[in-house]
Amino acid sequence: MKTNLNILKIGGNVIDDDAQLRAFLKNFASLPSPKILVHGGGKIATEFNKKLGNESILIEGRRVTSQAELDTVVMTYAGLINKKIVGLLQQYSCNSIGLSGADGNSIQATKRSPQPIDYGYVGDIQQVNSSFIQLLLDNEITPVFCAISHDGKGQLLNTNADTIASELAIALSSNYATELIYCFEKNGVLSNIEDENSVIETITLADYEQLKTNNIIVSGMLPKIDNCFHALSNHVTKVIIRNADLTSTQAQTQLKLL
Amino acid sequence: MKTNLNILKIGGNVIDDDAQLRAFLKNFASLPSPKILVHGGGKIATEFNKKLGNESILIEGRRVTSQAELDTVVMTYAGLINKKIVGLLQQYSCNSIGLSGADGNSIQATKRSPQPIDYGYVGDIQQVNSSFIQLLLDNEITPVFCAISHDGKGQLLNTNADTIASELAIALSSNYATELIYCFEKNGVLSNIEDENSVIETITLADYEQLKTNNIIVSGMLPKIDNCFHALSNHVTKVIIRNADLTSTQAQTQLKLL
Repeated sequence: MKTNLNILKIGGNVIDDDAQLRAFLKNFASLPSPKILVHGGGKIATEFNKKLGNESILIEGRRVTSQAELDTVVMTYAGLINKKIVGLLQQYSCNSIGLSGADGNSIQATKRSPQPIDYGYVGDIQQVNSSFIQLLLDNEITPVFCAISHDGKGQLLNTNADTIASELAIALSSNYATELIYCFEKNGVLSNIEDENSVIETITLADYEQLKTNNIIVSGMLPKIDNCFHALSNHVTKVIIRNADLTSTQAQTQLKLL
Repeated sequence: MKTNLNILKIGGNVIDDDAQLRAFLKNFASLPSPKILVHGGGKIATEFNKKLGNESILIEGRRVTSQAELDTVVMTYAGLINKKIVGLLQQYSCNSIGLSGADGNSIQATKRSPQPIDYGYVGDIQQVNSSFIQLLLDNEITPVFCAISHDGKGQLLNTNADTIASELAIALSSNYATELIYCFEKNGVLSNIEDENSVIETITLADYEQLKTNNIIVSGMLPKIDNCFHALSNHVTKVIIRNADLTSTQAQTQLKLL
């Protein structure tokens, strides 16, 4: 039987709140190994962009990454946020290592075609270097990935953190029973966005189609759930969307193909 | 006989010039492994500080690191510069990994006492995690260190890049014949700062005392050379100060105890 590998992803809202971030990391540190953390950080990047006088442009919720924007993203994701997380995990006795996709050639991507929409320096993942990640896990080192990949030709690329998490889970599923856990500020996928208690506990692929048709799941949640089903269709054992408070016993959402 | 390990350090002037940096990295990539790169980046941090409206304060050439300054330093050193270097090394077929001292708990430090001068979040190195670095080197992964350490209690600390290079060389000398090579914009230690051809090819500890007494070596060069002799006194095999153009056949400076 394969060893379990938990891959947790946290988003901007958890990272922005220092107390929430520390609480999350303390709990994450106490989870059994092997495990991987993936983090976003869009809000902090947007703030720094403002301070630097750059304007953040989003099309359909996705950042358009100019050269100046890429620099900001690399500084905040791979620098400020990633190293803060790694420093805190060390404090909580979790030996971790911060990684962009360039480090150890861990995540190779290609720059997205400028047609039909030019998103700038945005990468679509081509390959995950599982043997490098395996080396770290075998040595009880917990990888902490930020949302940066590279093209192998010297170009760093901004890459969606949800996608990084799902592609890591898929790539590592040949050696592990991978569980993908998206942690955010809500308890799960809600049937009523105004009601925290309206968590849909199980969503099958058939349910998902229905929920989309009925406009119950909309906008920002769609690419996240697409990532979930993409993972489940590619050998990932289990996919959960839940609250970033890992001590919470509230209902959460599990995605299932059938 | 121990395997050779080259530890090269590049400073701000090389990093600031894109063409020089690329040329250096291309040559570095072609050096035989195992090898380690350490980089500074003070000028870029100072520029970003200005853009962010923070003021950089230097006392005796050393940066006073406020919380805002630490954030800038972490963003630029561990983010912007470190990831650019790693991305370029991957392009040049050198599989590298960017590290702060928090990553893999590789460099632990303590915050410097605020007496007699309060330098803020500045770290004095206590311990290098050689077994982690050895793991990377054994797997043909080249570590690229930025000038950030951590205290193991969640605090990142700004740490002089020359000192990081020498402490790495010392710590790894139990397993390797370590050669420490400080690369910068001049050909070596000059007897006449105005004359690039006045390189002092060998400086012994006795020479050094004499050169200081005669005010031939002054200011910024002193802590660098102190680092060199500290390394030589602690089992480092060879220490060189040279031009960052690794193809240069110009005279360079070798430091020797005797």
